[in-house]
Amino acid sequence: MIRRIGGHTLGFEEMPSIIGFASITGKKESEGPLGKCFDKIVYDSYDGNDTYEQAESMLQSEAVSLAMNKANVMAEDIDCIFAGDLLNQCISSSFGLLDFGIPYLGQYGACSTMAQGLIMAAVFIESSAANIAACVTSSHFASAERQYRFPLEYGGVRTPTAQWTVTGAGSCILKNTKKGPSVARATIGRIVDLGVTDANNMGAAMAPAAAQTLKSYFDDTCTSPDDYDLILTGDLGEVGSKALYELMNRDGINIQNKHNDCGLMIFERTKQDVHAGGSGCGCAASVLCSKILNDFNEHRLENILFMATGALMSPTSCGQGANIPSIAHLVNIKNR
Amino acid sequence: MIRRIGGHTLGFEEMPSIIGFASITGKKESEGPLGKCFDKIVYDSYDGNDTYEQAESMLQSEAVSLAMNKANVMAEDIDCIFAGDLLNQCISSSFGLLDFGIPYLGQYGACSTMAQGLIMAAVFIESSAANIAACVTSSHFASAERQYRFPLEYGGVRTPTAQWTVTGAGSCILKNTKKGPSVARATIGRIVDLGVTDANNMGAAMAPAAAQTLKSYFDDTCTSPDDYDLILTGDLGEVGSKALYELMNRDGINIQNKHNDCGLMIFERTKQDVHAGGSGCGCAASVLCSKILNDFNEHRLENILFMATGALMSPTSCGQGANIPSIAHLVNIKNR
Repeated sequence: MIRRIGGHTLGFEEMPSIIGFASITGKKESEGPLGKCFDKIVYDSYDGNDTYEQAESMLQSEAVSLAMNKANVMAEDIDCIFAGDLLNQCISSSFGLLDFGIPYLGQYGACSTMAQGLIMAAVFIESSAANIAACVTSSHFASAERQYRFPLEYGGVRTPTAQWTVTGAGSCILKNTKKGPSVARATIGRIVDLGVTDANNMGAAMAPAAAQTLKSYFDDTCTSPDDYDLILTGDLGEVGSKALYELMNRDGINIQNKHNDCGLMIFERTKQDVHAGGSGCGCAASVLCSKILNDFNEHRLENILFMATGALMSPTSCGQGANIPSIAHLVNIKNR
Repeated sequence: MIRRIGGHTLGFEEMPSIIGFASITGKKESEGPLGKCFDKIVYDSYDGNDTYEQAESMLQSEAVSLAMNKANVMAEDIDCIFAGDLLNQCISSSFGLLDFGIPYLGQYGACSTMAQGLIMAAVFIESSAANIAACVTSSHFASAERQYRFPLEYGGVRTPTAQWTVTGAGSCILKNTKKGPSVARATIGRIVDLGVTDANNMGAAMAPAAAQTLKSYFDDTCTSPDDYDLILTGDLGEVGSKALYELMNRDGINIQNKHNDCGLMIFERTKQDVHAGGSGCGCAASVLCSKILNDFNEHRLENILFMATGALMSPTSCGQGANIPSIAHLVNIKNR
């Protein structure tokens, strides 16, 4: 049974559990602070394929395979999978998941996709629409640069506010087992547009959406940052994280002591030349499905807010001078 | 309570009802056989905007506004909206729905999006995750041609198997009211790839997915075409519909007498120069949210299968020589 809490939050009475999770990343991510936490590293940008796009598809399929192994389930046990990515028409997902034959519901939330997929999977399980559900998302530095900015061969100089798209994927398998990290509550985001137009400063574009969703959640649940071990954003990076602190402070909410950002955790920014931090669907996905969920299993974390943010623009809309609308979906994950 | 029926089908015990629906289309669609059924016609391809993409966004926002009016609900009454479209990063949806402030969950199912959105909305309502939920999708001939094929200014010649992207949108508002057209059952599709690579013959690419989903549904529910007033596919067009008949016939299932296709209904093909028929997310959406749901309200239809199909490729994947994977989601709509 799902309970609506306040205006925008869902409460899951059964609390669907994450019975398996896995992450896979590229070489650069393996050299960062979380390098040892990932299940698999792909050292070749092509991962043995002809194109970066095919390589990204393979990241998704490998993440799902690894998560299934850890959950001890087969593809035919999974009633549906929620997946999406940043590529046009979400081809990483459609090609990456083809061979599994799992009923597929494509999601588009840009870099918020991991949180969106978790919410979807939890709703489907809590409602008995699925006994076992999965979610997965990915990004790839080279396929994202080619599509959103410039082909790598151009050798373009990055702005200081730019983030570095993570090459990686993460997948979770959910089931109602009443143990381990479980989805307790969720807040579905609304689209926010505060007039940011700089596609090289996604953190600033996404911070207002993050602030809106986080405030809604605290209002709806009558809780505060003190009630949680960690408030983890997806990929606001350095610029966006600071903007989020400021926006929350305006409402008298100080999250700074409890906050971390997947985009800041995944790279050693001073050494790895990633400017404002990591980004991409695969950033939040690979950090959640490695360090974070491991910490749950080892009881270093018990109760967190995982909030992935997405910038809902396209190169076309940016080229036409439109603002960058954004969104943030929040999931409260608790150990049982 | 949602019941799982057989391997792939969901049964909705409460049967969430479609309490409001609306369609909006362009000039060409208004000149077709269903012209009088649409709620609003946009005679200018730009709909007063600077770009085709903005015009498509406006189709979505107008469809939602019209559907809300007919359902007698306000944006703040709607707990979440499921939306998607064909444009890169689904910008028709993110820009079109921005001003409503409704919690937003972006979907990507290509032309299957209307069925996918209906399934999502029904699951959220049946599970109490939402009291009122909405779905919407759109397509626009000019924005689709620019993105998927050639800018219109090239004046390219179309192949005989090509379909014509519908300029239009359709939206449904769902609530548990136990009256009117209601979602009784649904089958979530699996991704299918039978090796079709011709991006100008989407019908052929999508027919295998349609056949797989339809067979699963009949198997799961122990029903046959005779049990339904209509089996309505999204936009297989002429080529895809024939392929679907053949694929179903191989399993001894004859759907021809009960079948129609939104892509064949929306245009007068011999006169309107649309080759194999209409296509695009807006095709299935605008036909369902006009003629079909009107027929439910006037009891000319009581029990149908609505199955929208999607081709999950992108111009990038086609350019790289990949096959066209496809999917079909099915919704059983019944009058109460």
